Amino acid sequence: MNNYEQWVGIDWGTTNVRFWLLATNGTTLDEVVLPLGMNTVTSGQYENIILDTITKWSLRHTPLRVITCGMLGAKNGWFEAPYLTTTCDSIDCDKLYSVQTNSSTLDVKIIPGIANYRPTYDVMRGEETQIKGFVTQNPDFEGVLCLPGTHTKWVHIKNSIIVSFQTFMTGELFDLLSHHSVLRHSVDTQLVDEEEFINAVDDTLSRPELFAQRLFYVRARSLLANTSKEKATSRLLGTLIGTELAGSKPYWLGHKVALIGSKKLTGMYQRALDLTGLETEVFDATENTILGLKYVHDRLAKEIPTNN
Amino acid sequence: MNNYEQWVGIDWGTTNVRFWLLATNGTTLDEVVLPLGMNTVTSGQYENIILDTITKWSLRHTPLRVITCGMLGAKNGWFEAPYLTTTCDSIDCDKLYSVQTNSSTLDVKIIPGIANYRPTYDVMRGEETQIKGFVTQNPDFEGVLCLPGTHTKWVHIKNSIIVSFQTFMTGELFDLLSHHSVLRHSVDTQLVDEEEFINAVDDTLSRPELFAQRLFYVRARSLLANTSKEKATSRLLGTLIGTELAGSKPYWLGHKVALIGSKKLTGMYQRALDLTGLETEVFDATENTILGLKYVHDRLAKEIPTNN
Repeated sequence: MNNYEQWVGIDWGTTNVRFWLLATNGTTLDEVVLPLGMNTVTSGQYENIILDTITKWSLRHTPLRVITCGMLGAKNGWFEAPYLTTTCDSIDCDKLYSVQTNSSTLDVKIIPGIANYRPTYDVMRGEETQIKGFVTQNPDFEGVLCLPGTHTKWVHIKNSIIVSFQTFMTGELFDLLSHHSVLRHSVDTQLVDEEEFINAVDDTLSRPELFAQRLFYVRARSLLANTSKEKATSRLLGTLIGTELAGSKPYWLGHKVALIGSKKLTGMYQRALDLTGLETEVFDATENTILGLKYVHDRLAKEIPTNN
Repeated sequence: MNNYEQWVGIDWGTTNVRFWLLATNGTTLDEVVLPLGMNTVTSGQYENIILDTITKWSLRHTPLRVITCGMLGAKNGWFEAPYLTTTCDSIDCDKLYSVQTNSSTLDVKIIPGIANYRPTYDVMRGEETQIKGFVTQNPDFEGVLCLPGTHTKWVHIKNSIIVSFQTFMTGELFDLLSHHSVLRHSVDTQLVDEEEFINAVDDTLSRPELFAQRLFYVRARSLLANTSKEKATSRLLGTLIGTELAGSKPYWLGHKVALIGSKKLTGMYQRALDLTGLETEVFDATENTILGLKYVHDRLAKEIPTNN
C-alpha cells in the first residue's frame, strides 16, 4: 500500500494550466501556472509537461497521486473522459478516468465534465470540481450558482446535486470584441468606470435585443463624443453582463446566488445583480477547485490504491 | 474647362477597395478590387495606390475626376471628411471633401459619412452613397432601408431624406465567432441549411436575451449530438440575424423594407424577414454605390470644374 502524503492537483484550462503541490489536509504547499492550455498542447505532450513541472518538488512517493480536472479530459485534450449527465452529483468517484501513463511514477485521475441534454445541450469541464468544492463547504445551500468566466455557467443545484445548467459565452465575447473587433480602438481591458458599467447593465437588462446595436454604439460614441476608454470599456462590459443577466433570469429570479470566480469578475457580477435586489455571496474559484480536488483525494485515500 | 468624358469611382472599405472606370452615363467600363482596405493602408499611401491602379486605363483627361466614398474619409483614413448629421440628405454636393493631391492629374472628392446623435450615437461611411443611388431610382419609396454587412445599417428615410439610422455589428460578430472563438471548431463559413437557419431566427426573435447562451449551444450541440458544420453555421447565422431583427423591430414593424447588399446576405435577411410577414425587396449594393457616385459626378459636371 502506497503512502500518499503529498499529492498534486491540476486544473488544465483552455489557455493556462495550474499545478498545486498539496498536503494530505489540502493545504497548498506550492503553485505553478503555465501558459500551456489545451489550445497550445497536443495529446502526446501532457505527460511530459506534468513530469517536467513536478520535478522541482522532488516527491518521494511512487506512484504519485495526481488529481486533475478541466480541458485535458476533452475530446481534443489528453484522454477523453466521458461526461456525466445531469441530473447528477458534481463528482462521482466511481466515474473518474484513470490515465494509462507511460511513466509508472504517476497515478493520474481525470475528473469528468458534465453534459446537459435537457432543456438544452450544454457542457462543462472544470467547473464541476469547483461546484463539488463549494457543496462540501456549504451542504445546506439552496439556490443557484454562477461561475463567471470565458464561458459563464449558471447552475441549478438541489441537495448538492446538479439539476441543470446553462452556459453564456460572455467572457469570450468580451475578449473577441476588445481585441479583434472595431471596438479595439475604443476600449482598454483594464479600466472600469463604475457608474457607466451600472448604467449599461441597467439599459441592457431592459432591452437585451439591442445587443449588436449597443456594441456599435460603444464605437460610435467614442468617435462622436470622444468618450474615454474607461467609459467605453465599462459600457461594453455592462452590455455583455446585462444581456447575460436578462437571459439567465429564469435561473436567478427569486433565488439566492453564490458567485464562484476571480475577485474581479465576481465583483462585477455582484454589482450588476445588486441592481435586481438579489442576495449574492462571493466565493473564490481557486479555493473551491482545490477543495473539489481534495474531495477526490480523500475518497481515493480511503480505498486501497491500485495501479489500475 | 476640362472635358470629363471618363471618370473613376472608388469605394474604399475597411478590408478591400473597389475602383471603377466609368463612362459619363455611368456605365461600368472596368472594375478593379484590391485587398488594400483602410486597415492595411497608411494615409500617405492612398494617392499612390490610386495612381498605380488607374495607370492601366491610360486616361487622357487631366485632371481626372475621381469620386470616392467609404473609409478613406474616416479619422484613420486618408483625409477626415467631416460627417453630415441627421436629419439630412444622403449626399450634399456642397459638403464634398476636396482632396489636395500631390499630383495635378487628379481631382479627388470624398463623399462624407453621416452621423446620428439622436436617439443614439451612430455613424456610417459608404452606405450614404448606396442610399443616394437607391433614392435616385426610387424617389417615391416610403419605408425602411436595411443594408446588411459587417455593420448592418437600418435606415429610416422620408421623402428621400435620412431621418435616423441604427447599426448592428452582426456581420463582424459572425466573422469573430466563426474564425476566432471556440465555435470555429464547429462551423464552416460557406454552408447554409435553410430549415436550421429559419428555426434559429424564429427561436431568437422570441428570446433575444439568450444570445450568449445560444452561441454556446452551437458548440455544445456539436459536441453532444455531432451536429454537422452546415447545421451549426446556420444556427449561428440565424441566432445573429434573429437577434438583430428583434432589436431593429421598431424600424421594420409595419414598414416596407428595401434590402441593399450582396445577393447572399440580402437573401438571408429576406428569408428571415419572411417569418414576420413583411414585404421586402432586394437591391444590389454595387449597382447602387455606382449610382450614388454617378449622382455626384453628374452634379459636378454641371458646374464649371475648378482645381480648388
